[in-house]
Amino acid sequence: MRVPPQDSSRLTVELINTGSELMLGRVLNTHQQWLCRRLADLGYAVTRQVAVPDTGHDIQQAVRESLARADLIITTGGLGPTSDDVTRELIAQLLNKPLREDAAILAQIREFFSARNRPMPERNRVQALVPEGAQVIANPHGTAPGLAIEIRPNPFRSAGAASWLILLPGPPRELRPLFNDAVVPLLHRVRPPEGEFVCRTLRATGVGESRLQETICRHLESLVGEGLDLGYCARIGQVDVRLAARGPAAARVVERAETIVRRLLAPHIFGTEDEQLEAVVVRMLTERKFGLALAESCTGGSLADRITNVPGASAVFPAGVVTYSNAAKQSLLGVRAETLARDGAVSEAVAREMAHNARERVHADCALSVTGIAGPGGGTPAKPVGTVFVGLASAGGVVVERHFNPYDRETFKQATTQQALELLRSHLIQTG
Amino acid sequence: MRVPPQDSSRLTVELINTGSELMLGRVLNTHQQWLCRRLADLGYAVTRQVAVPDTGHDIQQAVRESLARADLIITTGGLGPTSDDVTRELIAQLLNKPLREDAAILAQIREFFSARNRPMPERNRVQALVPEGAQVIANPHGTAPGLAIEIRPNPFRSAGAASWLILLPGPPRELRPLFNDAVVPLLHRVRPPEGEFVCRTLRATGVGESRLQETICRHLESLVGEGLDLGYCARIGQVDVRLAARGPAAARVVERAETIVRRLLAPHIFGTEDEQLEAVVVRMLTERKFGLALAESCTGGSLADRITNVPGASAVFPAGVVTYSNAAKQSLLGVRAETLARDGAVSEAVAREMAHNARERVHADCALSVTGIAGPGGGTPAKPVGTVFVGLASAGGVVVERHFNPYDRETFKQATTQQALELLRSHLIQTG
Repeated sequence: MRVPPQDSSRLTVELINTGSELMLGRVLNTHQQWLCRRLADLGYAVTRQVAVPDTGHDIQQAVRESLARADLIITTGGLGPTSDDVTRELIAQLLNKPLREDAAILAQIREFFSARNRPMPERNRVQALVPEGAQVIANPHGTAPGLAIEIRPNPFRSAGAASWLILLPGPPRELRPLFNDAVVPLLHRVRPPEGEFVCRTLRATGVGESRLQETICRHLESLVGEGLDLGYCARIGQVDVRLAARGPAAARVVERAETIVRRLLAPHIFGTEDEQLEAVVVRMLTERKFGLALAESCTGGSLADRITNVPGASAVFPAGVVTYSNAAKQSLLGVRAETLARDGAVSEAVAREMAHNARERVHADCALSVTGIAGPGGGTPAKPVGTVFVGLASAGGVVVERHFNPYDRETFKQATTQQALELLRSHLIQTG
Repeated sequence: MRVPPQDSSRLTVELINTGSELMLGRVLNTHQQWLCRRLADLGYAVTRQVAVPDTGHDIQQAVRESLARADLIITTGGLGPTSDDVTRELIAQLLNKPLREDAAILAQIREFFSARNRPMPERNRVQALVPEGAQVIANPHGTAPGLAIEIRPNPFRSAGAASWLILLPGPPRELRPLFNDAVVPLLHRVRPPEGEFVCRTLRATGVGESRLQETICRHLESLVGEGLDLGYCARIGQVDVRLAARGPAAARVVERAETIVRRLLAPHIFGTEDEQLEAVVVRMLTERKFGLALAESCTGGSLADRITNVPGASAVFPAGVVTYSNAAKQSLLGVRAETLARDGAVSEAVAREMAHNARERVHADCALSVTGIAGPGGGTPAKPVGTVFVGLASAGGVVVERHFNPYDRETFKQATTQQALELLRSHLIQTG
């Protein structure tokens, strides 16, 4: 039984997620994973996560218990304008701090609504209330600001050691930038991570998790002995390798590990940290001043969607077509009726014509095409559900790959678009 | 502030998820949602969920705290054969019960390996250990059995009221059948759920969370008095209204609430439970045997992606184009150069031509078009980032709406595609 001793010098962080929809199992708690991962990558550790319904007893009890244990407590949710948004009020009550209306927040909330040509509902006024002494974390993405409260002395903790309590709004697109832009600097100010913590994530594609692990782990053994923490995270069409270390030798250990992994896994490594394959591809196209056309069937626009998620994509992506029907493959892409009749829509020949013709019609430097069977229907013994052809047309001609992705529709799309982007990335590397 | 009183007659359930990978944010906690949803639908309520690392202090402390509060505690994970699987041993230690090797379990584990033609690793023997007095829950899907322990009297609870502690293995494909086949019957034996539990989620679009609440809450007051539990969950371009009740009148209360909400919010309600707007639209198109064409600019294929996420979309979606550049708007969609020069690509006139021409070129019954400024660049004072025009062409002509979605790129796409799908849904309802 491995029970490591508690490290009393490290900052202890607890997370409290509020919301009856969590307790009723109506939504998935994605905040836990996101916040825990961000904190771990910054060198902090979450020692406990608690979810409670948005009712008085539970939120107050959970916050009181966490204040008795932790240096930093982050709550999520319950800052909205509706009647079940009670976190702000309950915490002010627990801490015995009066709520005061903050004129600057109120002005921001009014501004939020007037920018949308809508009157501010009276209910939203409650979001301008701030417990006395709390720091306001401005929220550019919504109406509920975050709040940061230093509890010093902390009446719930033995010896009265101070704690920080941070309240974040529930919607992920508000919570995430608030955490990155305001909570991270506050954390670094309050308690920098002990010693040095270095974490490097390398992202690989075109190689499975087991084979990747077999390839690298033997060569990293001695560094693991020197404190390297090696982790793997398998995603769809992608494996992330996490190299981390703590202490004075951390940077050297991680750097040596990275060199080894890159040597063993090149050309599979496409990026680092949170970099997406589509961002790498758009960057490479931009550097080469190349235009990309897309001709999608079974991926249904998700390849174009991924490319256009990257800011600046408009400079390299003039156009794509989504030709689901055979008629559209003919009229919009000029695929020949004979080819469709002879080989079927899901075939090497159709993928070839789609890529070739998309490149010509859009006057692009290169074009990707995808045709396959996403399922659940449409499979045959020769071409079962999951069969897909991915084509790439460039000045050098057309290449087509066949893949097999027998998954649900959304996973199929993710896996297939990953393969298409990787085909283009390899081509761009090879042609320089 | 709505703080309902605690109902002391109800069974209180707490959930403890163990695993350092949870605390490091390396995996998503899907057990919480699955178990909470199952328990809620069975009429029980989870009052707290806790996640802790798999180390001694944390698991023991969490179990002790839950034993002081709850009638039933379910732990997940930590029953495997490796060194970080410590739950069984730590709980036996906490309860001061010796661990004994169970010959029947050991035989099952040996059988599990021999059925797979593999020798049993010696480490797996630890999985046959059972705390004295515990009931064994056989696990046909793996090697770790579940355990159920009645703690009577419960030394951690005032008045010593009994509690049940149930230990389940972590892999979902083992945990779920064990819960259904063994925990549910045990729950019913220990404490049958009080009356019935009914939960209904209605999904609305085109109305903000505050205004939605202002519209309905006054009219639901008397039902709240009769036990209706009313919750809201704001998503991008969507608000979910949750209506729940317990006890003999539950079905009647929820049904009356649904009638009131539907009367007040129609036509904003588009679906129930987990139904997505794109699935509703595909269903309506399928019923009418209508074909839909898409002409996207700033949404970059995400509208096509949402439509094609719905199984069966191929019957109603022949084709779409993603025309990011002005040249492609002209060549693929026949938008006139004069219109682009006069009004700009982001304009009512271009949205109109895109929808009209897409409908004609694809020979579809209707077509949606989108042109706007997703940002971060490209805004002007007259058309700031977030400005978007959504067009719908049908047999009755073309309509264009102007919206303002000043968000990050992915949220912009989600909000805009929601507005486009809603424009089509309203049109299909109105035209019957």
